[in-house]
Amino acid sequence: MIIVLKPGATEKEIESVENKVRDSGLQVHLSKGVERTIIGAIGDERKVDAAFFEVMDCVEKVMPILKPFKLVSREFKQDDTVLEIRDKVLGGDRVVVFAGPCSVEGRDMMLDIADEVKRSGATFLRGGAFKPRTSPYSFQGLGVEGLKILAEARERTGLPVATELMDTRDIDLLVEYADIIQIGARNMQNFKLLTEVGKSDKPVILKRGMSATVHELLMSAEYIASQGNANIILCERGIRTFETATRNTFDISALPVLKQLTHLPVIADPSHAAGKSELVQDLAAAAVAAGADGIMVEVHNNPEAALSDGPQSLKPERFASMMKRIGAVSAAVGRGI
Amino acid sequence: MIIVLKPGATEKEIESVENKVRDSGLQVHLSKGVERTIIGAIGDERKVDAAFFEVMDCVEKVMPILKPFKLVSREFKQDDTVLEIRDKVLGGDRVVVFAGPCSVEGRDMMLDIADEVKRSGATFLRGGAFKPRTSPYSFQGLGVEGLKILAEARERTGLPVATELMDTRDIDLLVEYADIIQIGARNMQNFKLLTEVGKSDKPVILKRGMSATVHELLMSAEYIASQGNANIILCERGIRTFETATRNTFDISALPVLKQLTHLPVIADPSHAAGKSELVQDLAAAAVAAGADGIMVEVHNNPEAALSDGPQSLKPERFASMMKRIGAVSAAVGRGI
Amino acid sequence: MIIVLKPGATEKEIESVENKVRDSGLQVHLSKGVERTIIGAIGDERKVDAAFFEVMDCVEKVMPILKPFKLVSREFKQDDTVLEIRDKVLGGDRVVVFAGPCSVEGRDMMLDIADEVKRSGATFLRGGAFKPRTSPYSFQGLGVEGLKILAEARERTGLPVATELMDTRDIDLLVEYADIIQIGARNMQNFKLLTEVGKSDKPVILKRGMSATVHELLMSAEYIASQGNANIILCERGIRTFETATRNTFDISALPVLKQLTHLPVIADPSHAAGKSELVQDLAAAAVAAGADGIMVEVHNNPEAALSDGPQSLKPERFASMMKRIGAVSAAVGRGI
Amino acid sequence: MIIVLKPGATEKEIESVENKVRDSGLQVHLSKGVERTIIGAIGDERKVDAAFFEVMDCVEKVMPILKPFKLVSREFKQDDTVLEIRDKVLGGDRVVVFAGPCSVEGRDMMLDIADEVKRSGATFLRGGAFKPRTSPYSFQGLGVEGLKILAEARERTGLPVATELMDTRDIDLLVEYADIIQIGARNMQNFKLLTEVGKSDKPVILKRGMSATVHELLMSAEYIASQGNANIILCERGIRTFETATRNTFDISALPVLKQLTHLPVIADPSHAAGKSELVQDLAAAAVAAGADGIMVEVHNNPEAALSDGPQSLKPERFASMMKRIGAVSAAVGRGI
Repeated sequence: MIIVLKPGATEKEIESVENKVRDSGLQVHLSKGVERTIIGAIGDERKVDAAFFEVMDCVEKVMPILKPFKLVSREFKQDDTVLEIRDKVLGGDRVVVFAGPCSVEGRDMMLDIADEVKRSGATFLRGGAFKPRTSPYSFQGLGVEGLKILAEARERTGLPVATELMDTRDIDLLVEYADIIQIGARNMQNFKLLTEVGKSDKPVILKRGMSATVHELLMSAEYIASQGNANIILCERGIRTFETATRNTFDISALPVLKQLTHLPVIADPSHAAGKSELVQDLAAAAVAAGADGIMVEVHNNPEAALSDGPQSLKPERFASMMKRIGAVSAAVGRGI
Repeated sequence: MIIVLKPGATEKEIESVENKVRDSGLQVHLSKGVERTIIGAIGDERKVDAAFFEVMDCVEKVMPILKPFKLVSREFKQDDTVLEIRDKVLGGDRVVVFAGPCSVEGRDMMLDIADEVKRSGATFLRGGAFKPRTSPYSFQGLGVEGLKILAEARERTGLPVATELMDTRDIDLLVEYADIIQIGARNMQNFKLLTEVGKSDKPVILKRGMSATVHELLMSAEYIASQGNANIILCERGIRTFETATRNTFDISALPVLKQLTHLPVIADPSHAAGKSELVQDLAAAAVAAGADGIMVEVHNNPEAALSDGPQSLKPERFASMMKRIGAVSAAVGRGI
Repeated sequence: MIIVLKPGATEKEIESVENKVRDSGLQVHLSKGVERTIIGAIGDERKVDAAFFEVMDCVEKVMPILKPFKLVSREFKQDDTVLEIRDKVLGGDRVVVFAGPCSVEGRDMMLDIADEVKRSGATFLRGGAFKPRTSPYSFQGLGVEGLKILAEARERTGLPVATELMDTRDIDLLVEYADIIQIGARNMQNFKLLTEVGKSDKPVILKRGMSATVHELLMSAEYIASQGNANIILCERGIRTFETATRNTFDISALPVLKQLTHLPVIADPSHAAGKSELVQDLAAAAVAAGADGIMVEVHNNPEAALSDGPQSLKPERFASMMKRIGAVSAAVGRGI
Repeated sequence: MIIVLKPGATEKEIESVENKVRDSGLQVHLSKGVERTIIGAIGDERKVDAAFFEVMDCVEKVMPILKPFKLVSREFKQDDTVLEIRDKVLGGDRVVVFAGPCSVEGRDMMLDIADEVKRSGATFLRGGAFKPRTSPYSFQGLGVEGLKILAEARERTGLPVATELMDTRDIDLLVEYADIIQIGARNMQNFKLLTEVGKSDKPVILKRGMSATVHELLMSAEYIASQGNANIILCERGIRTFETATRNTFDISALPVLKQLTHLPVIADPSHAAGKSELVQDLAAAAVAAGADGIMVEVHNNPEAALSDGPQSLKPERFASMMKRIGAVSAAVGRGI
């Protein structure tokens, strides 16, 4: 941690900072420049909050040197984390695909879509039983019934199932029915929920919050990992910016940046990023070209009647065409699908 | 709802949209222009999702006319909502002040700060027992013990207490100990939490999410109101932008905009917006000048030793000086304090 | 244009809006709903500013139906614009590559880099003679001497040259020396500069401003086109967001969105988007996968000594490797390079 | 400048960085920590670009210590800059007000508005003769004729005149007719324009670009100052964010932040920030409460017929009421008007 003092800091003030550094279990390294005095605080600064020094009157700014996350960092573990989920592998050479409807709306539609996406080569099923909706008057999901339908779709297709957890009180249900628990973008900093999934050993898809930085996403992953569950899959799904031509702005750079910073697998959700089905195929191809370990897309057999996210859902034919396109691109960048 | 069709939409397509409008319980109003056909869907469009039409191939865009929130809107209720909380009034002519530490760190500090802020004229106490922290390694709050200390501070000073709820499982505890339940910015779209406080009758401070629009804030308030609890206080606390000179960007315009759109009281939290105590006084004065019904600030008797948010916490002397400044400004704009 | 009146608008107010619509040369289409009266203004609304109606007291909001740009829109011209620049083609089946240093720093380095990028398959040379620098104390470019060196590099390699115009007073110089005139991101709304290049017939690369929407980019292109010059190449180069892990946030979705909205060719500049050379290759591959007609990258033979943008400049070996990667991806999506 | 090396940097790499630091005229201060080696580069780092070190393979990041601007910084000059413009004073104890139409649309309207705003207590006149418009089809201003009308309005009222410069070729005209030259938000980083006004001695209003940080605004001011003209007035006018309820997001915190960082006077333009006249009064009062040295607002005698910015223009009565409100607030914070 580098502590920059204000110009004109007195000897007494410098000493008070030095003492506070030592009291925090760090070593002092003093540097007097022409315009500023700088104090290096050497040691494992992750235990100490920068705010602890920023608050001092004589301090101009504090710059952390170490990253605030540890267990999920590439420095902590060099090799890519590879997850085995039932008989599927995530995080290895091949690009995986999660597909399914936004919400489980009923048994027939879910089984129908499950068959379709399996036929086109999907690796995992997705579908929401508990749905975070911005309006209290919108469809909120089928709840437990939705979980049971998902389980049936898994039995039928052999595809493991990912579904969202919204409430700490539902953790046992999710552990029972799902193969992968999803933490949605709006709950990325719901620390109680993170702690709860961290205590289970289920793989967790952690979606990036719409205004979360890459570092904050990794800190939320650290929450889960710090409870003992390192089976984490990060998911870029678009961030909020001033641009309104798309629902969110798909931060494609986050994919290679995350691959540098962490050993965890990283997937991309172009459906939520774009908000429009006609853009999904191009963005999915781009994500694979940029190094994504997987793609998650919404597929619906009748988007015009969908109870949620119709405009961004692919019809099965279009999903099949997307699978071909990302297959070709993943081969071009030296990976299979 | 206005449905704009793509140029070249066929008669058959136009008819299919008309049918879908009628099936949704709305009336059709057709307009054929030179370049576009436009269909007005007349009636209570709040029951129908724009996505339901956007998904149609022949539709270019859908523009809602009505606001998606109802119970919290100024149109639904013209008069300002005024809350009575113990013997205090919030939302009326006078500007109220919430003050206290970020976290309850212990009994002595809390009682000490409570005495100080009461002396300078605060109306309500604030203090966190459950703390949302970005790092799993940071202080997470005293939990129930913190709630008990807050209750003691209330007995001692007579100031009603506001504190944060983070987990649906803690709702009964909060109802027991707190006078006002706070929903933090990171949980503004934690819909399960909103539903839970909506079922109680405690006043709720709903803080704006750091990337939430004013409309989304009102939709989250609608969640609470739709469960039967209309005792809601909205709180602007800064949004996330590209600017890094402050912790967040304090969206001062949201205050008058909210006062137009809703009958609910609106307060401002300049401490979290600024992230630096030296800016708090100016921003608090600005918020009062712009029409805020209240101010919430962090006060600590020893910010240099604070376990959280030290840099943005006011010392008691500075809080006293802020009280004088906002007192003068509230008089200048025709309100008391 | 759809004009939504406030609830309770009187007959007299409605009439005043109707009259203003007619006075603007548009036709009136009146719709009285349960909660709102809506007036459709039918005709070529592009001649009329929405603000003209928004300003009326009885008007709640005004929603334009038509896009505000015309000449550059896909509706105006269905077929892709293909530019022939010397013996090169831009905008057709093949993906083109602009490469070269950020600034022309001298004759030897420029000729050296030109040779290198030609060898690896670049189609166009890039290099700045006039440089927009955020600090007045930084290197500002070689000016006319830089233009002469670029011309020499073109003679030597046969690669046409793109370089930036910063000042209306330099337009004749640029027309004389450059094959393509670049308008930088900071000048995207320098309307005098746009007008000036619009009067010439040189191809223009128009870079998206860092906080410009896709629609604003197209409006700036319309400025150029409205002066008679339709030889415009749009360039996505990253937008400003809250994320600091990259210099800018590369808005990959803008590529397919622009291809839908306009007939103009669209290229991508991953160097400025990323700000770090190690990300450029992944982003370039992603851009090609998402449908870019070309890629513009910074290449320097000695980035460690570069006078500007060293950290985002590729070394020639890395550029060669990027060319192979985007070659494979462009083949995978059915295009050559 | 603090240069953080990657973990595992070799002795040879460390030495290469040390040499580069010394070659840049700075002194080396070496710190070997447990996980990282850190090199302090001591001296006037403003002459050296951080990129110069970032580009080195062994460097993880570079953190500047000194601010990149000098002449405009509070450290360079402690006392507030006070400008005398004709017989008016800007930057002192009293809050000044710039008022007038967005565009000069004709002689009568300009003289009429000038009379009105003078009567209510405005200090300066504003009005555009050259207008930056996003559409090439919109009214572009009266040009020289507009300048002449402004000069006449000044003769008549005694109020000095501020008007915008858009093109380096017009600098002599502006120097002849205007008392204060305005650089608009879209030209904040038009460095040629900054250089040109820097060579004159006219006071310059520099408006913050809509995606410019406070530091970038100060760097643009440094451009002007570095040419010899230190008569600069900074203007906050709203930044671009995800929020669409207002035209821009008024960054009220920028006012006290700028007052800390620079000795230059700082004014606020609530008209452009809000985009809606009904918000202007609240935001103007807030700006004064937060410490603004002046307010700039758009006033039109007939906003419904305005050729630009009608919706955000105050009618003269409303301007008079705003003047009273900010008069009261400025007295409350210890300043006059």
